Amino acid sequence: MAKQNRQIRLISRPIGLPKQSDFEMIEAPLAEPADGEALTRTLLLSIDPYMRGRMNDTKSYAAPVPIGGVMVGQTVGEIVTSRDSAFVAGDLVVGPGKWQEYAVVPAKTLRKLDPALAPVSTALGVLGMPGHTAYVGLLDIGQPKPGETVVVSAASGAVGSLVGQIAKIKGWRVIGIAGGEAKCRYAVDELGFDACVDHRAAAFAAALARACPNGIDVNFENVGGAVLQAIWPLLNNFARVVVCGLVAHYNAATPALSPDFRHVLSKRLTVQGFIITDHAGRFGDFLRDVSAWLRDGRIKYREDIVEGLEHAPEALIGLLQGRNFGKLIVRVAS
Amino acid sequence: MAKQNRQIRLISRPIGLPKQSDFEMIEAPLAEPADGEALTRTLLLSIDPYMRGRMNDTKSYAAPVPIGGVMVGQTVGEIVTSRDSAFVAGDLVVGPGKWQEYAVVPAKTLRKLDPALAPVSTALGVLGMPGHTAYVGLLDIGQPKPGETVVVSAASGAVGSLVGQIAKIKGWRVIGIAGGEAKCRYAVDELGFDACVDHRAAAFAAALARACPNGIDVNFENVGGAVLQAIWPLLNNFARVVVCGLVAHYNAATPALSPDFRHVLSKRLTVQGFIITDHAGRFGDFLRDVSAWLRDGRIKYREDIVEGLEHAPEALIGLLQGRNFGKLIVRVAS
Repeated sequence: MAKQNRQIRLISRPIGLPKQSDFEMIEAPLAEPADGEALTRTLLLSIDPYMRGRMNDTKSYAAPVPIGGVMVGQTVGEIVTSRDSAFVAGDLVVGPGKWQEYAVVPAKTLRKLDPALAPVSTALGVLGMPGHTAYVGLLDIGQPKPGETVVVSAASGAVGSLVGQIAKIKGWRVIGIAGGEAKCRYAVDELGFDACVDHRAAAFAAALARACPNGIDVNFENVGGAVLQAIWPLLNNFARVVVCGLVAHYNAATPALSPDFRHVLSKRLTVQGFIITDHAGRFGDFLRDVSAWLRDGRIKYREDIVEGLEHAPEALIGLLQGRNFGKLIVRVAS
Repeated sequence: MAKQNRQIRLISRPIGLPKQSDFEMIEAPLAEPADGEALTRTLLLSIDPYMRGRMNDTKSYAAPVPIGGVMVGQTVGEIVTSRDSAFVAGDLVVGPGKWQEYAVVPAKTLRKLDPALAPVSTALGVLGMPGHTAYVGLLDIGQPKPGETVVVSAASGAVGSLVGQIAKIKGWRVIGIAGGEAKCRYAVDELGFDACVDHRAAAFAAALARACPNGIDVNFENVGGAVLQAIWPLLNNFARVVVCGLVAHYNAATPALSPDFRHVLSKRLTVQGFIITDHAGRFGDFLRDVSAWLRDGRIKYREDIVEGLEHAPEALIGLLQGRNFGKLIVRVAS
């Protein structure tokens, strides 16, 4: 197999927002799978906020991408060669394929997809890691109770849009926060949120307060920074803050303002961070429930597809600025 | 009953540390108890950090003391007149008697004390609200697991000293933080902490890190501010921060620095504030367990007694600066 493998590597660690020059595309010789491995051809690459964290060389929950290493990412691919009995050539799979045209990965990291059940792209979004994140964060960590108000930021994104829709299915009041009028309209008109507030509008904090006349009981937080500063004073006693993402902090060369810690005590808040990989045991429940809701038309999703692996860096840079609208996916091959 | 009742009232709201001039002592006519009430003569008045919060006119978990109102506080007293069948004159009781020589209170807010079981002063400390706070915060909220490291600030205080001793009874590793060498020596030599670090020492953060070679799993936090800033980077993944008090923030005219929120996500922290009055259901368990440990000599306590109601303001001012050593109590009468 004399084929070459186009890959996007990290070549410098960004300070603040990543730049195109932090990445480089190279061609590497294609590796051969060993026993228990498979060679996959990448069709779709998921672009997610957590990738910004992997570009830093700081202690975090996962090892950073080394300088010169291929950028990490979930992909949907097609099995080219399998050295494991669980897969045969032609199978469609989701797995940790990274930013490249071909990947050699342990077969046990792959999950087979049935395109008859749902479009395979959903394995990167509503039926994949972002969906699992929304499900666990809202139901297991936020644990809203009847009559409570849930506020979710990045409301039109892959995670936020599902958080809000699950909360509506469960009967809770849901207020979204999103960047721009179009995303806010989408959250209300298409996804059924009770309201959605534009965090780019001048009177954001006042508008959020108006949308939450009974305060906030559960905050599913994807953004942090100024968005969280507006949420914080509206939290009710015993509110739960589910810390899923802090995009506003990822690019900050100096730390973004942290919320006033005194409220943790005076309001008896529970503030809990979580990383979805710690909750693998709930994946089956998530997949069963959200697949059913999707089949029944109770869950909608939106994808933002970028064509061509070479555009992955600008896709991530745009995501970190909120320029995508829906689950961001790079189509690497069709 | 023509007697007068000396009372200490709040006459101005402090900015920062309270001053003597924020309080005034007056003589008021003694009220008569109505049906279901009792008149008590105050023997001991508890001085606690939460009192600083009640002096502010800000929204919090409890209503502020109004300007001109008698300062709130738990007291041990003797029943003078009872209009409730549960008490007779001469009974010793603990209840919300406030900063005054006599109090008329609903009988249902009083709890009878048996001086044969334990010195009645313990009803304000190790067998009272501070003890209950330590018990619930450590066991129910912190939930340490075998082999974990617990760090407690204000380690020689009424709450912290019991947190550490319960944790040692349970077999966990306990590191205290206290102000000054004498308090640190007391925590280790008398209370059996594994180590105690002086937060007033120049190399405090480095000394704390040395005392916690395996990081911190549970932080029972009574102080906040710079103490919490030193604890924060040492927290392990999945650590629990039990926010019981934030004395460093109470007197801050501008908010003390809040810890870097990004760690909540990257370390999957659970940060939870609590107020003991929300956990009344555990009082019986607490009293049973800690009374037994006290009888068996497994729990020690220390009291810092100030003589005379007129010294209550300076006692509170000293407490907020860490000048007390042990549970601070004002003896109002003997």
